Amino acid sequence: MRMSELSAATGAPIATIKYYLREGLLAPGERTSPNQANYGDAHVRRIRLVRALLGPGGLDVATAKDVVAAIDSDLPINHVFGIAQRAASVRLTGLGGDDEALARVDELLAGLRIHPSNPGREAAAAVIAAFESTGQRHEPDWYRRSLEAALVVAEADLDMVERRQGRDAQAETVVVGTALGDALFAALRRAAQEHVSTLRYEPVAPVEPDHREHPDVRQH
Amino acid sequence: MRMSELSAATGAPIATIKYYLREGLLAPGERTSPNQANYGDAHVRRIRLVRALLGPGGLDVATAKDVVAAIDSDLPINHVFGIAQRAASVRLTGLGGDDEALARVDELLAGLRIHPSNPGREAAAAVIAAFESTGQRHEPDWYRRSLEAALVVAEADLDMVERRQGRDAQAETVVVGTALGDALFAALRRAAQEHVSTLRYEPVAPVEPDHREHPDVRQH
Repeated sequence: MRMSELSAATGAPIATIKYYLREGLLAPGERTSPNQANYGDAHVRRIRLVRALLGPGGLDVATAKDVVAAIDSDLPINHVFGIAQRAASVRLTGLGGDDEALARVDELLAGLRIHPSNPGREAAAAVIAAFESTGQRHEPDWYRRSLEAALVVAEADLDMVERRQGRDAQAETVVVGTALGDALFAALRRAAQEHVSTLRYEPVAPVEPDHREHPDVRQH
Repeated sequence: MRMSELSAATGAPIATIKYYLREGLLAPGERTSPNQANYGDAHVRRIRLVRALLGPGGLDVATAKDVVAAIDSDLPINHVFGIAQRAASVRLTGLGGDDEALARVDELLAGLRIHPSNPGREAAAAVIAAFESTGQRHEPDWYRRSLEAALVVAEADLDMVERRQGRDAQAETVVVGTALGDALFAALRRAAQEHVSTLRYEPVAPVEPDHREHPDVRQH
């Protein structure tokens, strides 16, 4: 297909596609004349992937480039996982934890089989340092229950990757799942907080005045 | 204390403090002369809070202002929760889900007591739409297990707020916990993924060559 059709197929403006080509986020099409190139389904998929990484995934262009290069490489899948993890952690790292926070995180993570260079370790220390610097108390119960939930999600993440056939499909799922998984969890947490809060503080669903005769009508 | 002491106490440069004052993120000090003001412990705490919101919390200045105003207001605590939730969801909303994705999210959230205006509902639809647009399959198992983990974390979030005495302390914990909780979870998920992956693919810890005679030595 031509670039105008690629734009129609993906909903991405032509200027955006040209930008992706210039930045190396998208491979060039097959040239059919000095001013024209032919694009295929792989280009459609890649444009959707890049938009997801830069949009809800929250990656910057340089990081998205590293991630896309990892998919296209022949690196083994666990290396791709490492690159995707680091990419999705860019916003989290470099915040500067301190030794005390790092010691607390190591205590929290004791028993887990992780390498000290795991990007989550320093990021967790930085977040905990920021949290306690605001005058919040040390909250080991909150940290521990967050970790337990993270282990549940990590099992689901790996199960999803294992449902894919072949290294390339797995690499794409690793990248998209890692980049979008945090945003999905944050969204579901908002819903869960309202639900738990409603159950605690309004345990009985109020009945709408119009439906007083039908006490089984659920609140909306 | 004077502004130079406030800077020393918080580690925030004087230019940053002046910026917070100009933007209304920090209340003015008590004026002692035309060019001098006196600041107290409340200013120290507020500067730490604003830095946490703008740094690891990832809020922009306008959103941080809304959140700080909510703490200082006399709004009831569940309203503050709503404002903090919306603030921490700014990055997530406006991504544009679609009706199909919204229907799937409603199916996923069926049985939860949430209002249709919950910011997580549309954000989850937008993330799921982006995820599936990249050619990833519909993943109900991944969505459902993410929600189950989110419910565990939401209970921990509310328990933490309830451990606080008084409306103002609760409001601060709601704001800081909501803004930093997502970053903490994302960090712990990185660690959990490596742990689960190691358990699955390297179930027996390799023994360091130097410690071959001590098979109980743990790997680092």
